[in-house]
Amino acid sequence: MSSSRNASQACASCKYQRKKCDPHCPLAPFFPQHRRKDFMNVHKVFGVRNVLKLTKNLGHKEKSEAIKTLIYQADVRVKDPVGGCCRVISELQHRIKNLEAEYRLLLEQLAVCRAQKQAKAPVHKQQQF
Amino acid sequence: MSSSRNASQACASCKYQRKKCDPHCPLAPFFPQHRRKDFMNVHKVFGVRNVLKLTKNLGHKEKSEAIKTLIYQADVRVKDPVGGCCRVISELQHRIKNLEAEYRLLLEQLAVCRAQKQAKAPVHKQQQF
Repeated sequence: MSSSRNASQACASCKYQRKKCDPHCPLAPFFPQHRRKDFMNVHKVFGVRNVLKLTKNLGHKEKSEAIKTLIYQADVRVKDPVGGCCRVISELQHRIKNLEAEYRLLLEQLAVCRAQKQAKAPVHKQQQF
Repeated sequence: MSSSRNASQACASCKYQRKKCDPHCPLAPFFPQHRRKDFMNVHKVFGVRNVLKLTKNLGHKEKSEAIKTLIYQADVRVKDPVGGCCRVISELQHRIKNLEAEYRLLLEQLAVCRAQKQAKAPVHKQQQF
């Protein structure tokens, strides 16, 4: 029995590099053949060598998470070569700034309403305090 | 006069690669020698070749913006090899979710306050409506 996967089983990375995909292929668990697009984006943005270097000291779970995040970042960078994830971050920060401003406004409106409610309360009620 | 910068003027990329840094060096405007750390992070995460490929079709302004975002992403990835920018995005999304929940709560409190204010208003005022 061969120790390498045959061509139809090779991972997206080995298939692209026309390499034998052996059972110890470090990218096979993360880039099965049907994730070719993910692999191509990651390869285009980071390069296979860098992905291997960046993840070599991580355990399987962390490596899996790291590769997921690299796939996301690569996809965003391919779609937005100038801004990449930074534009996503910037937009989210902008949304937070707006939400905080709206929140402060609502807080002021609530304070005004409470003050008016107190002022409108019948006199005998107010005198209890 | 030499067409290449001397060793002390070479950009961080050429200095690292021990290359002559000529006036057409595409990375020199973005990685002067004192930005060695930025260059090293970008090189570690993306690689010089990928940075050049990713930015080759961009005008100077867009290229400058793209390299700034690559520097940011590389810095975050070096500090957080598993999450990179995705963790930043995830934390911002979490903050937005919390802010939206707080905003909705405040909106409910305001509605209650307004209803109570209306109810507490003197009877003759209410009868006007």
